[in-house]
Amino acid sequence: MSKGVTPQSSDYAKWYTDVVQKAELADYSPVKGCMVIRPYGYAMWEGIRNILDEKFKETGHVNAYFPMLIPESFLKKEAEHVEGFAPELAVVTHGGGKELEEPLVIRPTSETIIWSMYKKWINSYRDLPLLINQWANVVRWEMRTRLFLRTTEFLWQEGHTAHATANEAEEEAHRMIDIYRQLCEETLALPVHVGRKTENEKFAGAVNTYTIEAMMGDKRALQAGTSHYLGQNFAKAFDVKFQTEENVPDYVYASSWGVSTRLVGAVVMAHGDDKGLILPPNIAPHQIVIVPIYKNEDDKNKVLNLVQPLEKSLKDKGIRFYTDSRETVSPGFKFNDWEMKGVPLRIEIGPKDAERNGLVCARRDTGKKTFPSLAEFVDTCEETLRTIQKDIFESRLRFREENTQDIQSYDELKEVIEQGGFARTFWAGDSDLENKIQEETKATIRCILFKKTNNEGVCFMTGRKSTDQVIFAKSY
Amino acid sequence: MSKGVTPQSSDYAKWYTDVVQKAELADYSPVKGCMVIRPYGYAMWEGIRNILDEKFKETGHVNAYFPMLIPESFLKKEAEHVEGFAPELAVVTHGGGKELEEPLVIRPTSETIIWSMYKKWINSYRDLPLLINQWANVVRWEMRTRLFLRTTEFLWQEGHTAHATANEAEEEAHRMIDIYRQLCEETLALPVHVGRKTENEKFAGAVNTYTIEAMMGDKRALQAGTSHYLGQNFAKAFDVKFQTEENVPDYVYASSWGVSTRLVGAVVMAHGDDKGLILPPNIAPHQIVIVPIYKNEDDKNKVLNLVQPLEKSLKDKGIRFYTDSRETVSPGFKFNDWEMKGVPLRIEIGPKDAERNGLVCARRDTGKKTFPSLAEFVDTCEETLRTIQKDIFESRLRFREENTQDIQSYDELKEVIEQGGFARTFWAGDSDLENKIQEETKATIRCILFKKTNNEGVCFMTGRKSTDQVIFAKSY
Repeated sequence: MSKGVTPQSSDYAKWYTDVVQKAELADYSPVKGCMVIRPYGYAMWEGIRNILDEKFKETGHVNAYFPMLIPESFLKKEAEHVEGFAPELAVVTHGGGKELEEPLVIRPTSETIIWSMYKKWINSYRDLPLLINQWANVVRWEMRTRLFLRTTEFLWQEGHTAHATANEAEEEAHRMIDIYRQLCEETLALPVHVGRKTENEKFAGAVNTYTIEAMMGDKRALQAGTSHYLGQNFAKAFDVKFQTEENVPDYVYASSWGVSTRLVGAVVMAHGDDKGLILPPNIAPHQIVIVPIYKNEDDKNKVLNLVQPLEKSLKDKGIRFYTDSRETVSPGFKFNDWEMKGVPLRIEIGPKDAERNGLVCARRDTGKKTFPSLAEFVDTCEETLRTIQKDIFESRLRFREENTQDIQSYDELKEVIEQGGFARTFWAGDSDLENKIQEETKATIRCILFKKTNNEGVCFMTGRKSTDQVIFAKSY
Repeated sequence: MSKGVTPQSSDYAKWYTDVVQKAELADYSPVKGCMVIRPYGYAMWEGIRNILDEKFKETGHVNAYFPMLIPESFLKKEAEHVEGFAPELAVVTHGGGKELEEPLVIRPTSETIIWSMYKKWINSYRDLPLLINQWANVVRWEMRTRLFLRTTEFLWQEGHTAHATANEAEEEAHRMIDIYRQLCEETLALPVHVGRKTENEKFAGAVNTYTIEAMMGDKRALQAGTSHYLGQNFAKAFDVKFQTEENVPDYVYASSWGVSTRLVGAVVMAHGDDKGLILPPNIAPHQIVIVPIYKNEDDKNKVLNLVQPLEKSLKDKGIRFYTDSRETVSPGFKFNDWEMKGVPLRIEIGPKDAERNGLVCARRDTGKKTFPSLAEFVDTCEETLRTIQKDIFESRLRFREENTQDIQSYDELKEVIEQGGFARTFWAGDSDLENKIQEETKATIRCILFKKTNNEGVCFMTGRKSTDQVIFAKSY
């Protein structure tokens, strides 16, 4: 247990905010519900952004930027949409010292402003598909906030696409949720369930919402990303028609999709322990930290004679590393600091290591130490980082499977939810029944699974046959 | 002259907005004073951002993100700062359906919120320097707006640094204005004057403001970037003290610096002509566009047999290229389109070119066509792009020098400003005199030059000796 960090076992929520602050990922700001993303946390977001941006571009998307301020009347054009977002809006009433004629809301999401522009840009099937993404900040006035997981302002990307057919738009929504799955599994070492949301849980204005759901360290679910098939809802609200190849006017079909800085919180909660963060190498801002240890000039020279070729080798391999040369703090302080910050591999080089041309290598995820020679370490470090990435993912997958129960009755569901974990089951109930279960257990249907263990089963509540296998869980 | 573009000579302002819209850089939005940055314009901003971000990181800076909403009271803590920004604020008065106890302003710049956090983070000289940059949107309620040049919301980066000494903070402000100069000259092919602002023109809250000033196609000046030495003004306003190495408390010294999406407008205005944009290769989203020309399947095969190896070669060289394979528009339409979008090199390959294993290569800046073989083109295309970059820069430098006059009297100044251009002269006047000149001529002092043609001269207004050589011009 690290100094000043509440143990997970005594208060998980407190552990989380302790780690986020002590690892210097984020800090509370003077503005209610808003946070400051500090450089170390922002570097993680940059890592996520760079990977996603490349995947978006590979799949034909381009970036653009739409205004943050939206006329209040625009939100009202899609009935479900305004109902979903009205309670969360921040409203600008004054600008340049005067009261505005029409109040402007700060975007909670950009469907309305973007579709008002698509009306200008789309005339013919030749203008389609239109595949635009935006990296932006959004504001949703939240009552209860938590660093990264739920803040009044957050950073995200939002894709908004327009298509000539329903099929294409549906395919796009599926393509993008799969890109989010790849990001979570391959980069963040976060196994996720992919599936569809129920009517109760879907996006305000969507026909279908797809989601990826991950299990956190306290066995709750976290929604890590969503994509929506919007049908013609926004096209109708903003009157966006196009001439088809057959020269017939039709409304455009749409998708939208997004992930946010919440993913940084997901990494903290999925992998961290009482010593702090555990970062998968693929997202770690520093994959390796080097701590030179010496007490006098003689030793310093010896040690740096090893550090310098090590740095050169790591640089050549394109490994993200950091050498902690601070002379104002002790090696022990540095070890704790980098454990808190979750750096996958810590290298210690003292005068004795230097004499044998070797070093000490400590894995953050397992705590195991090895004592390779410099050459051995350099030869194997990429493989070691890959192994750590794989091991973290597999341990999370094991953890999820150990904490997932197939349930057959409401009592069993209650028991699983009470213990903590995912309850997997078939479902043929309606919205009211789902609401009732939520009221009584605090659990919701996280998703209707794409990958089922059986094709068909019996709903534990209604006794009806169903092909919808779902995950019930408490969620963030 | 391209269809639908007002010629520069008949209405320069109209020419500018025509080109910005027809090149699909940006579009007007339904929200007064706000614009939509379209994918082609955003790609230019991404190019600028990537280059700057790398330069910032090389010089030890890290990125972070601070809240967009700032308590109104924070702005009032620095007297000059609030006076400068109060008339331009957008104010959020309602959130989550309720009136807020204290209104929040949308950041017009982030000094105040950032220094409120620096108070938490800075205690000792060991915490310094703190070198943080932020990529963000800001809002300044502007009365007269123009796409890219002056919009209510715009994208920018803002660096905010904290230092233990005045010297270090001053050095930082100089380092960053020089990075902006490099960006403009090397990437945007935009020669700039570097210098200091007068009291009248400096940033609200700064001790010194440094600026880069470029000449646009209509001979007006455009401020392309600024950096500020803030002294201890914000440290005092937010009570940010540190223990020096000698264990004495002192206020922290600060700098801030920024460039914005305005730079995209600068590129349009500096280089464009009546056919549209002319983009320097280093910032062009597509450096080369390939237009295959054919009328039947036979010809198509012949042409594509040349296009494919060309694409492979360009890809291997890391050149940004685009093949325009649209079959719904004519080659002539495509030529106009890519001329409008300013792509530096256009390659045409028709069946006759294919027969001789060659192609047609047209330079956007000069209009010159050459007819190299495929191999010749591939061997020389990088050199050609470098030449275009250099030629555009040099033609702009020539244009600026041709339109700069050294003036000795107020009459001469009036004449130069009336004709259009930069008036270079020595200056020993005060703020009132500068105001008077501005009222009478609409020209302001753009900067007190770092690079002077003489060390000393006589002020054309006061007759006093001065070491301050300045540029007077009308500006955007």
